[in-house]
Amino acid sequence: MSRKKKGTALYALIVAGGTGTRLWPRSRRESPKQLLALFSQRTMLQETCDRIMPIIPAEHIFIVTNEGYVTTVREQLPDLPPENILGEPEGHGTAPCIGLGALYIQQRDPTAVMVSLHADHYIEKPERFRQVLLDAAEVARAGYLVTLGIQPNQPETGYGYIQRGGALAAVGAQPVYRVAQFLEKPNEATAIQFVQSGEYYWNSGIFAWQISTLWTEYQTYQPALFKQLQSIGKGLGGKRERSTLLRVWKKIKNETIDVGIMEKSQRVAMLPIDVGWSDVGSWATLLDLLPSNQDNNVIVGDHVGVDTGSSLLYSPNRLIATVGLTDMIVVDTDDAILVCPKSRAQEVKHIVETLKQNHKHKYL
Amino acid sequence: MSRKKKGTALYALIVAGGTGTRLWPRSRRESPKQLLALFSQRTMLQETCDRIMPIIPAEHIFIVTNEGYVTTVREQLPDLPPENILGEPEGHGTAPCIGLGALYIQQRDPTAVMVSLHADHYIEKPERFRQVLLDAAEVARAGYLVTLGIQPNQPETGYGYIQRGGALAAVGAQPVYRVAQFLEKPNEATAIQFVQSGEYYWNSGIFAWQISTLWTEYQTYQPALFKQLQSIGKGLGGKRERSTLLRVWKKIKNETIDVGIMEKSQRVAMLPIDVGWSDVGSWATLLDLLPSNQDNNVIVGDHVGVDTGSSLLYSPNRLIATVGLTDMIVVDTDDAILVCPKSRAQEVKHIVETLKQNHKHKYL
Repeated sequence: MSRKKKGTALYALIVAGGTGTRLWPRSRRESPKQLLALFSQRTMLQETCDRIMPIIPAEHIFIVTNEGYVTTVREQLPDLPPENILGEPEGHGTAPCIGLGALYIQQRDPTAVMVSLHADHYIEKPERFRQVLLDAAEVARAGYLVTLGIQPNQPETGYGYIQRGGALAAVGAQPVYRVAQFLEKPNEATAIQFVQSGEYYWNSGIFAWQISTLWTEYQTYQPALFKQLQSIGKGLGGKRERSTLLRVWKKIKNETIDVGIMEKSQRVAMLPIDVGWSDVGSWATLLDLLPSNQDNNVIVGDHVGVDTGSSLLYSPNRLIATVGLTDMIVVDTDDAILVCPKSRAQEVKHIVETLKQNHKHKYL
Repeated sequence: MSRKKKGTALYALIVAGGTGTRLWPRSRRESPKQLLALFSQRTMLQETCDRIMPIIPAEHIFIVTNEGYVTTVREQLPDLPPENILGEPEGHGTAPCIGLGALYIQQRDPTAVMVSLHADHYIEKPERFRQVLLDAAEVARAGYLVTLGIQPNQPETGYGYIQRGGALAAVGAQPVYRVAQFLEKPNEATAIQFVQSGEYYWNSGIFAWQISTLWTEYQTYQPALFKQLQSIGKGLGGKRERSTLLRVWKKIKNETIDVGIMEKSQRVAMLPIDVGWSDVGSWATLLDLLPSNQDNNVIVGDHVGVDTGSSLLYSPNRLIATVGLTDMIVVDTDDAILVCPKSRAQEVKHIVETLKQNHKHKYL
């Protein structure tokens, strides 16, 4: 399926920040979702790299993560040049984060096309996904900011949506659209309408663009941030690289690339894709995605059950014994146990908030 | 309230055998229910002793337990003479077990009256209970085998019942009855009839008798066992005490004192009592008996909950976090976690059976 690369070289930026709370108690400040092995022996970050390495060489893959995770990320990705692992002094949203990554890629290759991925996404069909990235890169080379829209299979209220606009020239079999509008997370009735209409897609946060196009849009829509990034860029490779980064970074205002750039730009193209995508937003997602047994239970570790079905029983180190459970989630870790119905898995974030309020920091 | 002791001295035999499975994963072969601290810092065995020591001196309290628990029992009860802790080579039911204890008490005082208690019963009103034991001893001194019948407060299907017969002379305010019949665990409809009639009581397995009366009944209704016990009795205090016990014990047939003696004897008297008794048959009992918080949760250890009520959250060493649980039981131990609805707490025994079948002995 590999298609000959045309034009400029392809790079990847993997955004690996964040300290997601919805997979607590497994995800913690010190070990966030993207650094955990949830679907295999490989961490989600490693799987994200594994997935693209057939089409993008290790030297072209960059990671932006929290400064505190840089050492762990370098350990997890020994094939990547260590200097490709970039640390953000603090999180200011995806617009500064992706801008920082783009500076380093630009330094390597000013003509680069880059894809921007998240380190904590699950993709069921990696081969198909790689083809989509190559198609997206081709559209990017025509001067678009490309966003991937996920064909929705249910009226999800946890995602933003993209309404497609007029058709652009297809890339092979891959349709390409302009974007009519980006929409915030809908209520359920609206989400049902979105799915029924067939015109709406989940906003995956996966992008492709030429770096030169990206800078044009930053300059137009985020001029202050653009200037700040340029200051950082001038320092790259010099003695003052780090001090400049620290000095400038703390003045940067929080902004997401969706709101700050994508929703404003007139050059956005959307590729609808169907690759079995999930952002693994909660334990319920793991129950849906991991292989289940004859009772529809997903079991990680040792389990003994009486009349137990459709439940996630996640306990790598201890036995879980259950009687009469259906659609439940039980997650065990060294110091904490979570029990909740699948339908309420999103509320695990409230547990984390309560722990913060009660100053139970050792569990965060 | 203490009443002057009349007549012969009072002794207690505490039956502390058994390896109850319904409080798994806390109760294990190595640490059965009676040796666990479930209601306080004291184990159930210690609480059983504490409860009677105001009326029976430590030297008069004897324990029969599995040989393997003797060391632990001696550690738990340092106030008792170590020789009062007796080990059964193997369990053969309560008739041989109580007979063995009676031999040792008889050796100390042939005129003794003894009460026979279980080490794993919860008694809410210990002061009232002590008075009942003194009353029972008085009835025993008149030549009866006394059994305590618990005033039922619900149509329990997990207990045997005693139907009261004609009234005997009361002891103070304490009524005393003959027994019309002993009944096996009833179905729910029958249990409802029992409770409504007011003539039926739960069979507590708590007894009082003169040892001389007991031997008469053993001789009449269990002549083979009586002979075997007499052989063991002759060896007591001599060099061959242990070898005789081992030799005879393995020939003894299994028999309960209820079926083997109480149901056959014509000398049985029943004292109805209301002392807040429970045999702590499952985790559901602990949820009912332990103090609960404003959400009706019983919490042992550390718990963080969202919308969680009427649940037992038992985890001395780890945090339990729950979302959306009602009437649930979560029990954590070093190597195993139990999750089940309160209504199905009895089925925990099936977990233990499954573990046995699957040869997961380390969890037993």
